[in-house]
Amino acid sequence: MGNQFEIKCIPYASFQSIIQSGMDHKRLQLLADMCRYNTLSSVKLAGSGHLGSSLSAIDINTFLYFSELNVLEKGIDNPDRDVYFSSKGHDCPGQYAVLMAAGIISFEKMLKLRRLGGLDGHPDVKIPGMEICSGSLGMGISKAKGFAIGKKLAGDSGRVVVLTGDGELQEGQIWESLQTASHQKISNIICIVDLNKIQSDKETREIIELKNLEKKFESFGWYVQRCEGHDYDQLQSVFDIFDTITDRPKVLIADTVKGKGISFMEGPVALKDNNGIYKWHSGAPADDVYLEAVGELSSKIKQLCADLSVTDPEYKLIERRDKNVVRLKDKAEKVVTAYEQALVKLGKQRSDLVVLDADLCGDCGLKSFEREFPDRFIENGIAEQDMVSAAGGLALQGFLPVVNSFGVFLASRSNEQIYANSTENTKIIYVCHYAGLIPAGPGKSHQSLRDISLFGALNNITIIEPCNAQQTEDALFWSAEHADGSCMIRLIISPSPQNITLPTDYRFSKGHGSVLLEGTDALIIAYGPVMLNEALKASDILAGKSVSLKVVNMPWLNNVDTEWLKDVSGGFDEIIVIDNHMKFGGLGQCVANVMMSDAILKTKKITQLGIDCPPACGTPQEVLQYHGLDAQSLADLITSKKNTALKI
Amino acid sequence: MGNQFEIKCIPYASFQSIIQSGMDHKRLQLLADMCRYNTLSSVKLAGSGHLGSSLSAIDINTFLYFSELNVLEKGIDNPDRDVYFSSKGHDCPGQYAVLMAAGIISFEKMLKLRRLGGLDGHPDVKIPGMEICSGSLGMGISKAKGFAIGKKLAGDSGRVVVLTGDGELQEGQIWESLQTASHQKISNIICIVDLNKIQSDKETREIIELKNLEKKFESFGWYVQRCEGHDYDQLQSVFDIFDTITDRPKVLIADTVKGKGISFMEGPVALKDNNGIYKWHSGAPADDVYLEAVGELSSKIKQLCADLSVTDPEYKLIERRDKNVVRLKDKAEKVVTAYEQALVKLGKQRSDLVVLDADLCGDCGLKSFEREFPDRFIENGIAEQDMVSAAGGLALQGFLPVVNSFGVFLASRSNEQIYANSTENTKIIYVCHYAGLIPAGPGKSHQSLRDISLFGALNNITIIEPCNAQQTEDALFWSAEHADGSCMIRLIISPSPQNITLPTDYRFSKGHGSVLLEGTDALIIAYGPVMLNEALKASDILAGKSVSLKVVNMPWLNNVDTEWLKDVSGGFDEIIVIDNHMKFGGLGQCVANVMMSDAILKTKKITQLGIDCPPACGTPQEVLQYHGLDAQSLADLITSKKNTALKI
Repeated sequence: MGNQFEIKCIPYASFQSIIQSGMDHKRLQLLADMCRYNTLSSVKLAGSGHLGSSLSAIDINTFLYFSELNVLEKGIDNPDRDVYFSSKGHDCPGQYAVLMAAGIISFEKMLKLRRLGGLDGHPDVKIPGMEICSGSLGMGISKAKGFAIGKKLAGDSGRVVVLTGDGELQEGQIWESLQTASHQKISNIICIVDLNKIQSDKETREIIELKNLEKKFESFGWYVQRCEGHDYDQLQSVFDIFDTITDRPKVLIADTVKGKGISFMEGPVALKDNNGIYKWHSGAPADDVYLEAVGELSSKIKQLCADLSVTDPEYKLIERRDKNVVRLKDKAEKVVTAYEQALVKLGKQRSDLVVLDADLCGDCGLKSFEREFPDRFIENGIAEQDMVSAAGGLALQGFLPVVNSFGVFLASRSNEQIYANSTENTKIIYVCHYAGLIPAGPGKSHQSLRDISLFGALNNITIIEPCNAQQTEDALFWSAEHADGSCMIRLIISPSPQNITLPTDYRFSKGHGSVLLEGTDALIIAYGPVMLNEALKASDILAGKSVSLKVVNMPWLNNVDTEWLKDVSGGFDEIIVIDNHMKFGGLGQCVANVMMSDAILKTKKITQLGIDCPPACGTPQEVLQYHGLDAQSLADLITSKKNTALKI
Repeated sequence: MGNQFEIKCIPYASFQSIIQSGMDHKRLQLLADMCRYNTLSSVKLAGSGHLGSSLSAIDINTFLYFSELNVLEKGIDNPDRDVYFSSKGHDCPGQYAVLMAAGIISFEKMLKLRRLGGLDGHPDVKIPGMEICSGSLGMGISKAKGFAIGKKLAGDSGRVVVLTGDGELQEGQIWESLQTASHQKISNIICIVDLNKIQSDKETREIIELKNLEKKFESFGWYVQRCEGHDYDQLQSVFDIFDTITDRPKVLIADTVKGKGISFMEGPVALKDNNGIYKWHSGAPADDVYLEAVGELSSKIKQLCADLSVTDPEYKLIERRDKNVVRLKDKAEKVVTAYEQALVKLGKQRSDLVVLDADLCGDCGLKSFEREFPDRFIENGIAEQDMVSAAGGLALQGFLPVVNSFGVFLASRSNEQIYANSTENTKIIYVCHYAGLIPAGPGKSHQSLRDISLFGALNNITIIEPCNAQQTEDALFWSAEHADGSCMIRLIISPSPQNITLPTDYRFSKGHGSVLLEGTDALIIAYGPVMLNEALKASDILAGKSVSLKVVNMPWLNNVDTEWLKDVSGGFDEIIVIDNHMKFGGLGQCVANVMMSDAILKTKKITQLGIDCPPACGTPQEVLQYHGLDAQSLADLITSKKNTALKI
């Protein structure tokens, strides 16, 4: 069929036949392009993943595994191996492809990128060849220090090589680790900066300029070299020089091109084509784009094979799909879009509103505000601590800062700064984006499941998660206009799986939720589009079994009004609360506290559902099911309760 | 009486008479020494406080307020004022003395350092002249950015001047803020580094060397000047030059002497006298030392007054005390001492034990381990994030890292790094020192009251607070030898107010506490030496009223065994839980959860005591009482409950 397209991958045997024919820099180039092919295909299969950074780092990865490191010779578990890992972590699709080529992970595993039991969207130690968990930026050199000190204490040989991004250098922890590594004279560390000059979607020099990196690293006591990161001869020369430096840690600043290898994804061109915005940082390419990219790569591979007089690799068909299927994504509401619009509306009303971002402008829905009020938009780069404290200073000057990042970074990385701000009795709105379990492809470094617990012990903080577009605007306006202290708003990042309809008499009133669906047999309280969708779908399943489920939306995650709870739970002996969060610190605990404080409520049972183990990586349905939070699991739970009790 | 000594302070009028006689650099020197006198006296009155850093910064403070800043001219609330604050914050006794001299805070207020309703041990915005809350390091330049951006948006004039320490430059946030301030072209910021070259108790170059600071700041895009920080002519020259630089942020690296002005407290000498350990960073001097110091200062002041032909200042008697009273401090047990010994004992048994510190070696009881096992002790400087991730790397290499800092810094500043480590399924022991409300003199930047909530949502973490020396060793050994995941141990930093005696049949068994005192009328569950002391003292008060109080020690803060709780609360209708922590996330919530899950326990009432507002600053008794957690408040609460119910 003309309207179908195919995803293909190059199998292990094809790599082996090249490798066994001997190794030289031209062969490395061929291997790298074959890995590029597999990277593109695995991301396309997964439906998401990071291409730009995988492609910029893949020559370095190929050079390291197939030429420089002793890993293939010693074995990945040998204590004397060279330990290598990526600090940024989002280049892992490329690294997985190289690890497959090296026989460290299987071909089948490579095809399961971002799937349950497969390869996490960011590195995880359970995956062979992955030495650390990463995905949150700036930790790699510190981790490398731990490995290097450990090697020394244990008397093991081998270097520790860590790859960092360039945007990542904006994280303060990097500079902590540079200074301590140098002071502690940890000489068996080599850091490679993948200097591809583009952050998530803009040039680094536009976000926060890195300035003279050589001078910076030197002033922190490191031995510095710089070369082309796609040139194997140059890479080899630098590593040869590094062998002679034994008195301090070493860094290679590797000039690379983001998206390298696919002409239209390559940094300079791709930026010019799209008004300075780089669109290949994350996400799978559309069908036609994928075909164009792999077409380009297979031509290159063909030419290289001809030059080297080796056989063309096999291209194994993995999947055949209908092209351009319309997906939910294109139709469903996004709360972050509602937030984007509400922010502009609020910005028009209040000239004291200032919006801060840590290099997630597009993901956090800030572009409209940035366009409309450039003076009141602060792009702070990947420096959350600095952003939060700067917001504190602005608040002390009488402004109302709205601070944005992914919840997992904002609530955690800058936790002490948030606390310090809270002691100043100013008002700040923190918006924790990418809240909760879904999407689960990027994995545990990105799923924000502790943010309520991390904000909860602050003084006078209100924590809200809206369920739809309307409530998102309500949450923002309430926080700005009515809250008497700081607020934290959690927003999911995906399109809503269904558009949640609020009752006609709905009011946004602190401590009070809304009944979305009346029912008489069981009661679920949940919040946010993801879990409410599962609850509502569970009600459909249960309706088929003549079980009538009441579903309540409770956006106030640390404020539950006792009378409201009594009212909404009237006639039920049990309250089921679903947290899109770890159970610890979530809404379930808040509800339990309220219940313990009231004689009537105390007589009821509570079932707290939520996450109580590290979050899984996979598709939304896989992962919801894994944690027992999908509609079917909820329905089954309620059915089993019904079977053991007269009334829930 | 010969065995008495006197604390005196110089009143406001004496400063005014100098100031009104005109201002020149010699007069600034006189004012500074008079402020030094008051700094010493206020710290001596408080019984604690930071001298070394106050004394190194006091010339800069004097220069700024009485010569350079427009604050006294414009008024401290004027939007066009120069905003000035200290990022490190522990130099505030000196700054308070200067603010008193400037008439911004009252003489009476200055005498209430570290007292309830007085002057916090670290800066707080409620104090006139203090522009930010600080005390946790590294946030100041970021805050200054917020002020500077705010001034620009509001159209207000005035510079933003921020003082930092030198050890503080080890914090990664500093480098975030340097890069963003430069990129954002924030030119109305001046940073002054108080380069006194000594951290809490050692030379900075010994902890983590700062290397070429000029080169570092320049590579981050700042305009740099360097001068003597005690020389008013040089300070003036630098500020004159700064006026001409309008295109970027500016930094003055001010070479200072820690303890400046008191011969035997001055950096180089004081270090030599005490084997390289600086002992004047914090804490009040002993009586004789105080007398020697103020004696030295008053001679200098006398000479300067003579040189300037102005009248000697008045020395107002504030307090007359018996000298060298033996205090509780000298007799009581310290859990941190038990920890220090246990750590060495464990280090002898386990060669995989590695101890990490972030420049709090003495406070955290690490000196013995450092001495005994220098190779397995890592001094990481004030860089908690780096320390925690390095520990993660060590754990991945098979070591057992024990990570130390004050809880408020460790749990919060490095929270995301702790989370990342937790996803790697290694075992790490985190020791949160200075846990809880007491001592309350340093104030809310140091009191760790959120650490349980910050660790609680991690996977498979066990949180323990031991009540005495024996249990401290038990907690450390259990964590190392028996825990199947990471552990967090909370330790108070003060001497225990009483040595808690565990029952003879005591066992350290997860989820189980111990009855310290049998009773029949009311039940209190608490943990740690501070709150157990209050509970035990409450029982004495209540015994006088024929009320019999049962007191239970529960060291397992996130693991409460249901059967144990049923057993221990048998015969009581109510359980009172005291948290030395915010109520959110504390033991009280864990107990409430267990109660909600059990039909019998659910019928009982629970009263959760703890902290639910920002912690107060003051003496232990003042602050315990303020939060309703002192013995009398507990006894009153129980009495009032008794009066309204048959049985609690």
